[in-house]
Amino acid sequence: MRESDLLQRIAEATRTMTRRWSQVLLGPGDDCAAVQVRNVAGSGRAAAAAGSTDGGVALLTVDQVVEGCHFTPGTPVDLIARKAVARSISDIAAMGGTPTWTLAAGVLPEGFAHAADLTDGLHRWGEHWRAPVVGGDIAMSPRGTPLVLAVTAGGEPHPRRGVVRRAGACPGDDVWVSGRFGGSFAEGWHLSFEPRLREAAALCDRLGERLHAMIDVSDGLGRDAGRIAEAGGVRIEIDGAAVPRRAGASVMSALQDGEDYELCFVVEAGAMKGIDQIEGTMLTRIGRVVEGRGCVVRLAEGDVDARDMGWDHGCGAAGTPCPGFRA
Amino acid sequence: MRESDLLQRIAEATRTMTRRWSQVLLGPGDDCAAVQVRNVAGSGRAAAAAGSTDGGVALLTVDQVVEGCHFTPGTPVDLIARKAVARSISDIAAMGGTPTWTLAAGVLPEGFAHAADLTDGLHRWGEHWRAPVVGGDIAMSPRGTPLVLAVTAGGEPHPRRGVVRRAGACPGDDVWVSGRFGGSFAEGWHLSFEPRLREAAALCDRLGERLHAMIDVSDGLGRDAGRIAEAGGVRIEIDGAAVPRRAGASVMSALQDGEDYELCFVVEAGAMKGIDQIEGTMLTRIGRVVEGRGCVVRLAEGDVDARDMGWDHGCGAAGTPCPGFRA
Repeated sequence: MRESDLLQRIAEATRTMTRRWSQVLLGPGDDCAAVQVRNVAGSGRAAAAAGSTDGGVALLTVDQVVEGCHFTPGTPVDLIARKAVARSISDIAAMGGTPTWTLAAGVLPEGFAHAADLTDGLHRWGEHWRAPVVGGDIAMSPRGTPLVLAVTAGGEPHPRRGVVRRAGACPGDDVWVSGRFGGSFAEGWHLSFEPRLREAAALCDRLGERLHAMIDVSDGLGRDAGRIAEAGGVRIEIDGAAVPRRAGASVMSALQDGEDYELCFVVEAGAMKGIDQIEGTMLTRIGRVVEGRGCVVRLAEGDVDARDMGWDHGCGAAGTPCPGFRA
Repeated sequence: MRESDLLQRIAEATRTMTRRWSQVLLGPGDDCAAVQVRNVAGSGRAAAAAGSTDGGVALLTVDQVVEGCHFTPGTPVDLIARKAVARSISDIAAMGGTPTWTLAAGVLPEGFAHAADLTDGLHRWGEHWRAPVVGGDIAMSPRGTPLVLAVTAGGEPHPRRGVVRRAGACPGDDVWVSGRFGGSFAEGWHLSFEPRLREAAALCDRLGERLHAMIDVSDGLGRDAGRIAEAGGVRIEIDGAAVPRRAGASVMSALQDGEDYELCFVVEAGAMKGIDQIEGTMLTRIGRVVEGRGCVVRLAEGDVDARDMGWDHGCGAAGTPCPGFRA
């Protein structure tokens, strides 16, 4: 079973979750979950004054890196730690949020000689994104098995825009992206990318409710744009030639390589008038939202269903490309 | 490097964390971290009335199970899922808290045929403890490598007692435990234990501030009692003969096997007068807190330093016993 099948199963099994569990504001199926954190103590001044138990909202996500899949053997441990933290931070950015804490869990193969450096790196990168590693767990696995890191991140939503979901795209909207796409593995971008926290927050500041939907592109622009279309019950048309590419990357590479960790977002038509960069990062309109279903990329050689692009996290599974081995 | 060394390094590296990061109320080194979740929206009625950003407090923990270490190959997937969730839930219990959500991350070896059952199991057990799985991640590893699950759990502290820490034991206090100890692996207890949520909450209800410190016993009673002593800067003396044992378990087995998932807690002298069970679970006084440092077990054959007992999570590492292989 591939990740996409599993995630669909998770989504099905939990569609009723937000109804059954009042603390769950947003369940599986987005870049982050959103959970209500009650003020159970009722000890805050405001709560005491009003007799209330109002609390805050926590954005929550967990992501993993596996040796041989998300990084090649021999990658410096500091860069492994960086990527492990950055992937989860990027999920917080995709919701328009601000990260506040992380938890790190690692499975180290017997004989792994860099545990201390790895731990130091996780702490340093957590603090770099203002999300200190507040706890963790270490387990050991037999010699020769892959190193695995799982980083959980928590954050708070944008104070005015609130939680930006994948769902929300409407016919007539425009589809935009930050940065450039393709060849992330070959160029080392996947180890050095800066999660688009400032850009996402600035978009929330400037666009408010006109920012309709957002995702971070980890599995390929085509596939991830398709997820926005699916979540919104709409159709997205991408102009392949408009997709900004990293030097040397083909259009197909830009659409399906993944590991870009850029934002793909949908805005009310015209909302981006006069905006072609934010916080120093290039922004590009790549398509539009129309009535219908699915996601199509317009290419010179014809239309391609974008949902067939990108890669599934079935690393090592038969027939599944894996960026670590494609590089 | 063993987990205990790594955790000490983490504790050292983050001793200043609560000073540097205002959102961190309790950092690494306890069963859970505690983080302040702000009400950034300020949209709650109470916040609006008082102009406040008071939010709630989240208890946070992550724990892992690794095939061959925390469960033997061939264990039914539902029991694997159960244990993965229960271990993290037990950490919430150790703080006197109530779990509210979980996140699950899994690394599945290529060809693993039970992914759907595993996912279903994680959801079922999350809901069983009222902590639905709000998100997750699946990665694949090569055939023959161990199955790994990492479960993050979040919860809320007890509304009146607040966060119960490992630190807080004072000379003159009594040391108590719930349940029985020893032989958890042989008996299958490690796959079927019920995290002591109701018991911990009831202790908070009845004892309030007289409940000074608490931990859940996963690494062996001697070692985990030693952690309470270390965190409190005190000495604990355990009467070996008083430790309640599972049928067939020796005193040494009860002190060092681990995987018991019982509570070990420290109370003001006399606070437990008339209490020998709570929520149907047996409670036993096993020792006392005195001035000094360390943790000693009084046995018929002499005193033993309890901190040398129990096991390190260095499964598979040379010379390190592992419950999965000891069973």
